[in-house]
Amino acid sequence: MNKGRLEAFSDGVLAIIITIMVLEIKVPHGHDLKDLKPLIPIFLSYLLSFIYIGIYWNNHHHMLHTAKQVRGDVLWANLHLLFWLSLIPFVTGWMGENHFQAMPMALYGIVLLMAALAYFLLQRRIIVSQGENSILKKAVGKDIKGKISPIIYLISIAASFLSGWLAGGGYVLVALIWLIPDKRIERILKETKD
Amino acid sequence: MNKGRLEAFSDGVLAIIITIMVLEIKVPHGHDLKDLKPLIPIFLSYLLSFIYIGIYWNNHHHMLHTAKQVRGDVLWANLHLLFWLSLIPFVTGWMGENHFQAMPMALYGIVLLMAALAYFLLQRRIIVSQGENSILKKAVGKDIKGKISPIIYLISIAASFLSGWLAGGGYVLVALIWLIPDKRIERILKETKD
Amino acid sequence: MNKGRLEAFSDGVLAIIITIMVLEIKVPHGHDLKDLKPLIPIFLSYLLSFIYIGIYWNNHHHMLHTAKQVRGDVLWANLHLLFWLSLIPFVTGWMGENHFQAMPMALYGIVLLMAALAYFLLQRRIIVSQGENSILKKAVGKDIKGKISPIIYLISIAASFLSGWLAGGGYVLVALIWLIPDKRIERILKETKD
Amino acid sequence: MNKGRLEAFSDGVLAIIITIMVLEIKVPHGHDLKDLKPLIPIFLSYLLSFIYIGIYWNNHHHMLHTAKQVRGDVLWANLHLLFWLSLIPFVTGWMGENHFQAMPMALYGIVLLMAALAYFLLQRRIIVSQGENSILKKAVGKDIKGKISPIIYLISIAASFLSGWLAGGGYVLVALIWLIPDKRIERILKETKD
Repeated sequence: MNKGRLEAFSDGVLAIIITIMVLEIKVPHGHDLKDLKPLIPIFLSYLLSFIYIGIYWNNHHHMLHTAKQVRGDVLWANLHLLFWLSLIPFVTGWMGENHFQAMPMALYGIVLLMAALAYFLLQRRIIVSQGENSILKKAVGKDIKGKISPIIYLISIAASFLSGWLAGGGYVLVALIWLIPDKRIERILKETKD
Repeated sequence: MNKGRLEAFSDGVLAIIITIMVLEIKVPHGHDLKDLKPLIPIFLSYLLSFIYIGIYWNNHHHMLHTAKQVRGDVLWANLHLLFWLSLIPFVTGWMGENHFQAMPMALYGIVLLMAALAYFLLQRRIIVSQGENSILKKAVGKDIKGKISPIIYLISIAASFLSGWLAGGGYVLVALIWLIPDKRIERILKETKD
Repeated sequence: MNKGRLEAFSDGVLAIIITIMVLEIKVPHGHDLKDLKPLIPIFLSYLLSFIYIGIYWNNHHHMLHTAKQVRGDVLWANLHLLFWLSLIPFVTGWMGENHFQAMPMALYGIVLLMAALAYFLLQRRIIVSQGENSILKKAVGKDIKGKISPIIYLISIAASFLSGWLAGGGYVLVALIWLIPDKRIERILKETKD
Repeated sequence: MNKGRLEAFSDGVLAIIITIMVLEIKVPHGHDLKDLKPLIPIFLSYLLSFIYIGIYWNNHHHMLHTAKQVRGDVLWANLHLLFWLSLIPFVTGWMGENHFQAMPMALYGIVLLMAALAYFLLQRRIIVSQGENSILKKAVGKDIKGKISPIIYLISIAASFLSGWLAGGGYVLVALIWLIPDKRIERILKETKD
């Protein structure tokens, strides 16, 4: 089974997720600058989630790049990841409309945590399908980012009940960790060619 | 006519269907855990429909893989399938918002039944277009899953009027039957290569 | 300029148009069969528009199949067509919610007429870009369907003010004319190969 | 890294942006011509934004056509552009529902300005990645359109507070400048082949 349709379907779902979130930013009735003020937390939530979906799309792109073929279990591991990501518009909306209250912040973190877990499972399925000498396995290496992220998520979820802003800081931190360009896969691919 | 655009269009429609369903999960006004409680049936409906669309995408992927070219009748048989699947967000929403009452449960089953019928018709069109020695025909074989599913749908639709949960159990059962990896097409393709 | 992205973008827009229309079918609050009754005209409108978008996608697919390369003017002629088609969810919603009243029926016809005109202009741009011996020109031939459709649209628009049902009959008639498989392009392509 | 998925994802996002804007045109309750009147500014806003997204898609198509491979920084520069474009449905809705008042007109211009800046940054990233003899660099040349547009945006944003219509005129002017076919890239590609 070739991977073309898996990529196309994932691109479609991610493109829709990233775009329908903007529908949560409801057009205000007034036409003054002050009418935009209640939208600030909603806009900040949108920005954070946009970056998260962007990171997932980017990493998904790199990960699938190492795969030649996909098996049935990879298809389902991918759908599992898309399921958790599909809930991001909902938790983004809840977080934004409630000004970063405890419960919405915690739920946002739980969905991020589940998405990270689903990503990890997808990664494992692809590595297993590639057998020994898996390019992806080499590229992932010790996977420090992948191991730190869920820990920060867990701490942030707990911190939600102390302060929504503290939890938000944790989610921003993970996003920043991943925004730093991930040269691993590009480097390994290059080495493999040499 | 090549099949590239048929796959791209179907992927697009399925990606949108699977994603817009999440818009039915309306962001609650409160920010407590109890504010999420009314959303549980809506979430469960979403989960079930997500899995169904995933199964259809997966099987569609495998089925089209066996086809080299598509004729006009295949294009329309495919649109017919997409039509019934496009109604799934509506029936999912109705089912979720009414806590699995009789009529919404029955309608959900009717749409699933019509989608299954449309899938069967599409399968037939592709087999006919492949002529004798159709790879898809070999792969489908006795098509036990394809024959059992509509029977369970029919029983579940009738059972809706006894108990919504009974009907729901039937729909979950069919999903589970299909989630068990379908090795048929992969196996036949392998045999053909040997 | 290759045509790959033109097709991908058009597929995306058409897939979204055909799917967001279903959002107009609002989930009713009640859970009885009678709660679905007000949705019947909305459902019929959806069905008709689904078939129209399907026909456009199908014909677009065939038309682009004859084109090897696309120039800037073809890109814009295509966007012009997508613009009118993008209004179909709106006019479908208006028509459905107003039980086929005069003005919504007329506006539906006007949008169909403009889409047909845009399709004709796109067809001309592709034929001109192909120069003499245009495959598409041969395939289109006398373009009887393409000439009859706008006439029926015009009559139906006028008929809207007598009876919404009469106009609706006209729109259904045009859809039926196009649903009859269009063998022209497939035939010409075959002849060209011989 | 090949550019296929970058194009597919961008096409998906742009296709969704261009299409969900139509959801802002809410179906009116009445069925008379006069019920459409309040929709005129919303429709005009939609038309302008449709053309802008069309221009961006068109130019994006041409720009990426010159790129063979894309690096990590190009992926993020592209997501940055998509972020600003994703806000267009929101500012379009605000502008349309407030009949071209000062603040919505200014915000529309600010989003257009940021999108233009993001496009410029993406262009720079691709030129840098192509090294010397960059085809895109030759094609862009003095980039007069690219330099005039932000100036007109800035003037229009300021003009919003005098007259919304004046600002609107500025945005229409920029759209017209870009609608004039941009032969630069096509010409340079041709010269390169010779």
